Amino acid sequence: MAESRSPRLLPPGSTIGILGGGQLGRMLALAAARIGMRSHVYCPEPDSPAFQVTDRRTIAAYEDDDALVAFARSVDVVTYEFENVPAGAGALLARHVIVAPDPAILAITQDRLTEKSFIQKQGLNLADFASVAGPAELEAAAGRIGYPCVLKTRKFGYDGKGQQAIREPDGLNSAWAAIGARPAILESFVRFSSELSVIVGRGADGTLVCFDVPENRHENHILRSSTVPAAIAPETEAAAKKIGRTIAEALSYVGVMAVELFLVDTPAGPRLLVNEIAPRVHNSGHWTMDACSLSQFDLHIRAIAGWPLPPPQRHFDVVMTNLLGAEIFDSAGLAADPATIVHIYGKQAARPGRKMGHVNRLRPLGRR
Amino acid sequence: MAESRSPRLLPPGSTIGILGGGQLGRMLALAAARIGMRSHVYCPEPDSPAFQVTDRRTIAAYEDDDALVAFARSVDVVTYEFENVPAGAGALLARHVIVAPDPAILAITQDRLTEKSFIQKQGLNLADFASVAGPAELEAAAGRIGYPCVLKTRKFGYDGKGQQAIREPDGLNSAWAAIGARPAILESFVRFSSELSVIVGRGADGTLVCFDVPENRHENHILRSSTVPAAIAPETEAAAKKIGRTIAEALSYVGVMAVELFLVDTPAGPRLLVNEIAPRVHNSGHWTMDACSLSQFDLHIRAIAGWPLPPPQRHFDVVMTNLLGAEIFDSAGLAADPATIVHIYGKQAARPGRKMGHVNRLRPLGRR
Repeated sequence: MAESRSPRLLPPGSTIGILGGGQLGRMLALAAARIGMRSHVYCPEPDSPAFQVTDRRTIAAYEDDDALVAFARSVDVVTYEFENVPAGAGALLARHVIVAPDPAILAITQDRLTEKSFIQKQGLNLADFASVAGPAELEAAAGRIGYPCVLKTRKFGYDGKGQQAIREPDGLNSAWAAIGARPAILESFVRFSSELSVIVGRGADGTLVCFDVPENRHENHILRSSTVPAAIAPETEAAAKKIGRTIAEALSYVGVMAVELFLVDTPAGPRLLVNEIAPRVHNSGHWTMDACSLSQFDLHIRAIAGWPLPPPQRHFDVVMTNLLGAEIFDSAGLAADPATIVHIYGKQAARPGRKMGHVNRLRPLGRR
Repeated sequence: MAESRSPRLLPPGSTIGILGGGQLGRMLALAAARIGMRSHVYCPEPDSPAFQVTDRRTIAAYEDDDALVAFARSVDVVTYEFENVPAGAGALLARHVIVAPDPAILAITQDRLTEKSFIQKQGLNLADFASVAGPAELEAAAGRIGYPCVLKTRKFGYDGKGQQAIREPDGLNSAWAAIGARPAILESFVRFSSELSVIVGRGADGTLVCFDVPENRHENHILRSSTVPAAIAPETEAAAKKIGRTIAEALSYVGVMAVELFLVDTPAGPRLLVNEIAPRVHNSGHWTMDACSLSQFDLHIRAIAGWPLPPPQRHFDVVMTNLLGAEIFDSAGLAADPATIVHIYGKQAARPGRKMGHVNRLRPLGRR
């Protein structure tokens, strides 16, 4: 794709515009503050966690063009914490201010079909998939891909929402109904040996940097923990990083992004399949906050501010564990362990399964 | 002194009131945010750096009783970033909310005479000193203490302000005039071999923790750098830490504080003299932000929030260097080195000598 309009070098005191006021936006704002940047957070929800850590906010819908333009004019660069920024908002902002990463990238990653086609075009492996527009097409695709398989809406899926596993032909119709009878893809069910991700940063000057690869464990489609280093061979680690770099480079990406991977054991050896691209900082990179000299949030802010991107140095082995729902009620107890670093997001209601915070448990390098 | 009213355990979502909006208040607010606490910053200057990192502020004088009471009622605990909080403000706040550290401590440290008398009472060593209320007393004190000596106002001195070195009897009158002919102390000039400090934290439950001792270098009375570990014998390091603990304990201190020390070579071996007490987080503790799992700011917030205080773990050798005035203009260049972590405070005008930020240069443990 075309080279994005590149961020210029922003001095301390510049203002980072952040679309989205959740924990990722909050941690981006905190990282911006460390190097003297101001943040202006734009989010429709008045009690967004990121609003608590800056004095500049816009509470408005992502479809509010006037608010978007005023926001664009009040900041030096715009970035986002989530991949479902409406295309119209991204395009409008980009007419008034540099947006990084380029919002055109969202058009690729917001649609599972264009995303997977893009990944395929880079010569990377992924699970068998087929585009599905209706029940007849679904039946044909399932016949080709086989069972079990997974039906996923093309748009607006996250944390397992908009997905249905299908175990046998009898399940096709109910799966189609369950995802809302919307344009979808059908995907072969991947029997992975582990889930990995790559967190990669790319600077405005094209510098590529890559964190070590975490091994991720999900529960109920929600990330539970990330462990670094992953229990994988050095060649697998190198191959995973190469995938991350390939995608960031192909997107002319500026900022930090994640690529989720499946590791599959095959008779020919371990094989990496790309699951999906997250064009933003990522939950599976939260361990970088304490285990590295610079976190994924620090690197993202530097990239979009046109600063140099030094290669991240990892100083600890680490397990990041999300604190879900009521698990944050014992934050102080968790914090009593000097090797456990607690991060809490400032959310009001500790609903079951809600990501309220995380802990990074540090160990000396090389001892598993 | 009497046990202070102890902070209770504050859950995430509680609000920390911070008196003072400079870089220390800012870094305290950022540390509070990491564990999900809100901050409310109270400061008379509208463009205070700490205002940028929170959505709750009061712009008012420290003598504005109505504003202070409203502030006290809006927060769960009050702390301060500077030792010159007016006694009236501290006492008024303490009638409405827990203030930590206890503002009664300020009455000791705001006056060099009561401070030094307090230190002496703990059996700790310090430079010869005498109280001086007028020119005749000054002459007598100088005759006893000898030359060179240093005249210091009893109150409101920092970064070398309110101090005059006196090399000979001829200089007495001009020094007295230069400090504003105010109540003062005369101090023996200390020929130190190095300047050290101890950063000590004390929890609401009495737990005492201590960071490793930095060796500090000043230029023009302003801290230029802190190096950890200090080039001192293990016994000296242990003795310095013991001094920090003794003072924190004697004050029933809750929070993080610093004790500045002189190391003096004597025929009988190295000797530690207490220079002064800073009842707050301290510039010579900024290296903890990157070299330790928890920084002085993290520990201060935990202490005043009634959280457990784990012993801080140092993972790097480190040199902290202040960025003064125009030195921040190359922040991005400094940040290109992966072992150099840049912190910028968000101040508007880079006046000569003004503390604009700092860098922590990390090295593996044990290599000097």
